[in-house]
Amino acid sequence: MQLANATHDQLIAWESALSADYAAIKAQGLNLDLTRGKPSSEQLDLADALDGILKGDYLSPGGVDTRNYGGLDGIPEAKALGEAIMGVPAKQVMPAGNSSLTLMYQWLTAAHFFGLTGPDSAWHKTSAVKFLCPVPGYDRHFAICEQLGIEMITVPMNSDGPLMDEVERLVQSDPAIKGIWCVPKYSNPSGVIYSEETVKRMAKLAKIAGPDFRIFWDNAYAIHDLSFPGPQLTSLWEACLAEGTQDSALQFASTSKITHAGSGVAFVAASDANLKGFQKILGIQTIGPDKVNQLRHIRFFDAPGSLLAHMKKHAELLKPRFACVLKHLEEAFSDNPLGRWESADGGYFISFDTLPGLAKTVVKLAGEAGVKLTPAGATYPYGQDPSDSNIRIAPSVPSVPQVDAAMQVFVTCVKLASVRQALTQRMAQS
Amino acid sequence: MQLANATHDQLIAWESALSADYAAIKAQGLNLDLTRGKPSSEQLDLADALDGILKGDYLSPGGVDTRNYGGLDGIPEAKALGEAIMGVPAKQVMPAGNSSLTLMYQWLTAAHFFGLTGPDSAWHKTSAVKFLCPVPGYDRHFAICEQLGIEMITVPMNSDGPLMDEVERLVQSDPAIKGIWCVPKYSNPSGVIYSEETVKRMAKLAKIAGPDFRIFWDNAYAIHDLSFPGPQLTSLWEACLAEGTQDSALQFASTSKITHAGSGVAFVAASDANLKGFQKILGIQTIGPDKVNQLRHIRFFDAPGSLLAHMKKHAELLKPRFACVLKHLEEAFSDNPLGRWESADGGYFISFDTLPGLAKTVVKLAGEAGVKLTPAGATYPYGQDPSDSNIRIAPSVPSVPQVDAAMQVFVTCVKLASVRQALTQRMAQS
Repeated sequence: MQLANATHDQLIAWESALSADYAAIKAQGLNLDLTRGKPSSEQLDLADALDGILKGDYLSPGGVDTRNYGGLDGIPEAKALGEAIMGVPAKQVMPAGNSSLTLMYQWLTAAHFFGLTGPDSAWHKTSAVKFLCPVPGYDRHFAICEQLGIEMITVPMNSDGPLMDEVERLVQSDPAIKGIWCVPKYSNPSGVIYSEETVKRMAKLAKIAGPDFRIFWDNAYAIHDLSFPGPQLTSLWEACLAEGTQDSALQFASTSKITHAGSGVAFVAASDANLKGFQKILGIQTIGPDKVNQLRHIRFFDAPGSLLAHMKKHAELLKPRFACVLKHLEEAFSDNPLGRWESADGGYFISFDTLPGLAKTVVKLAGEAGVKLTPAGATYPYGQDPSDSNIRIAPSVPSVPQVDAAMQVFVTCVKLASVRQALTQRMAQS
Repeated sequence: MQLANATHDQLIAWESALSADYAAIKAQGLNLDLTRGKPSSEQLDLADALDGILKGDYLSPGGVDTRNYGGLDGIPEAKALGEAIMGVPAKQVMPAGNSSLTLMYQWLTAAHFFGLTGPDSAWHKTSAVKFLCPVPGYDRHFAICEQLGIEMITVPMNSDGPLMDEVERLVQSDPAIKGIWCVPKYSNPSGVIYSEETVKRMAKLAKIAGPDFRIFWDNAYAIHDLSFPGPQLTSLWEACLAEGTQDSALQFASTSKITHAGSGVAFVAASDANLKGFQKILGIQTIGPDKVNQLRHIRFFDAPGSLLAHMKKHAELLKPRFACVLKHLEEAFSDNPLGRWESADGGYFISFDTLPGLAKTVVKLAGEAGVKLTPAGATYPYGQDPSDSNIRIAPSVPSVPQVDAAMQVFVTCVKLASVRQALTQRMAQS
């Protein structure tokens, strides 16, 4: 379909055919969901040996009785698991509870209200606090800033990460900017992997922004490759060490998309000074994390190579779902400008762009035909996509036949919305 | 020992004998710990069947796959377990993560920064925020207020709860008072159980204090009796329903001292309006609690009567330890004013008062002789016990012979400190 060159009659014919297709789909009463990056039931099955793995032995390898209170810093052997996932030395890793989102929230509120390096460093003491948000990005990151009244400034994403010229310019020009959200590998949703140059420029930001600036490095897909060996992300920790800016890097990960999504172990990796400052604040709100569950995860990944072997099993389940999405997109849009998309060889998302002004319409059409999509705009701060074009596709939960059915609907909705828009524009011109 | 009537020579002789006893104890190189209310290893053993109890079946009775994301409100069957522990209807109970301290922190910060009933209700918007703290009380409650800059006002404890005349007078006179900390059953550390009258007067407080006032009802020892049937705490929920003040009651409990202390399930019980307001705020910081662990606890206490039977096993382990402490205190202080103590038929603590001005000295002497005690003053806001006399004794972790050894040291330290004080006072007078 080449809308620009089409005659009015052609547009009318297309609209009529697509409307008929859409009506037929609607009549099927589908109920499919492409909204969130959750593991499928089959993926969760892979870790079912977790419960019962302790066989009555609740002592950590180092002799900690994991059943009792305490251990704010996590059990030492879980730090090693964190290193295996994040590629940051175990010494800098703090294993925590079941949610990296919670950890990010705790660090952000700690820095905002109480100060990671003493009360004077609390962000909220300055007149305004702002954050850089590369877009499209992760709605839950933006929601934290919104709750705290932190103003979000968007920065466009390139194929090698956020536009660093713009990031540096903003940080230079506005001292109220205290941090930046990053998903550096298989970025949510665009799949971008930050390049070596991007990571190295990130490591230099604190030199411009000052000692209270923090990079929230949400490495949620650190080892979530679809092909092996997966691409290597340049180490932010090493880059910061080289610059002497290690206090600016706060790195997060979890086993949520490795073992069980609601009952995994989250990790943060940070400098000694950050960990010390954070734990002083954290110690007021908890006596310690669930160390029993940390121990389960240590035992589960005890054998050398077991973590990688486990991730390969995830990839086997995810790959056909991603391939199915891409097949539909290529068939429908490779020869026309109605859709553009970005997909990576890992992570949980495919980022799709409609023609400007159509994302909301497509999500609405799909929803009415029984295919739930993430709300249009969700990938932008305050839910506002200025060009109303980005849609995040998350195909991990449905089965391959379900993804296939959902994508037929999706493609039809994009075409229908595009043709209707072209018709409207043509009529306005005439 | 009757210090008041003793001659100078008698005091000198006692001091000399006690110093010799103390030196002999010190030479033993003891390493004993009476600091925190933790379960002993034998108590933790009682719940070791938790890991493995799922036998591969991760579906909740209602059909929730507990392994995946979601379920901010907890799984419904865990609400029923909360009701069994707290005596509040399951509908009002929200099961959460591994720590009731974390829940209390989350509720308090939610009310303080964001407002449980909308932004206008946020406490921090008023010029000052104050909390009532019955004393002696729980140091971790006080630490939360201190971190948030909430001014703490102490209220004395009676044998039937906080002095309600004083509580009502304060709430009436100062609108900045937004809450009160309560441990209503086996109060930490005094063991007091709030009387029916106290609970009913608590339920009326919101009528004086206004709609943003919250009672933080930390029912940590709700079913932690040493004799059975244990005493019945009057229901705050029922009392508030009768007054129409149910929004003022926030009740907390956990299985930390029922199953495993670091990996249990925490609960909050609150009104519909409170739960709705809280979950809107909580949803920004977490996708949901560890539902797998909630399911383990449901299965563990599946059989009717199993919860009570389990608590009786705890009591069997705790009773001889408490009896040993009380035996030493009675032998040493029943015929003299050197020590007073309060102990209940449940909970985790015995509250001991030295003569005024001696608690710090006793804790220091005991520590130097290898017996760790909770820092003197910890049971008061800002760590400041105005009469420097309260010491919290927590005998649950050591074995009975260890408690016996530790209490010999403790009693010797109290006597030695008292005699030395008497001598100093006598010398100052002469």
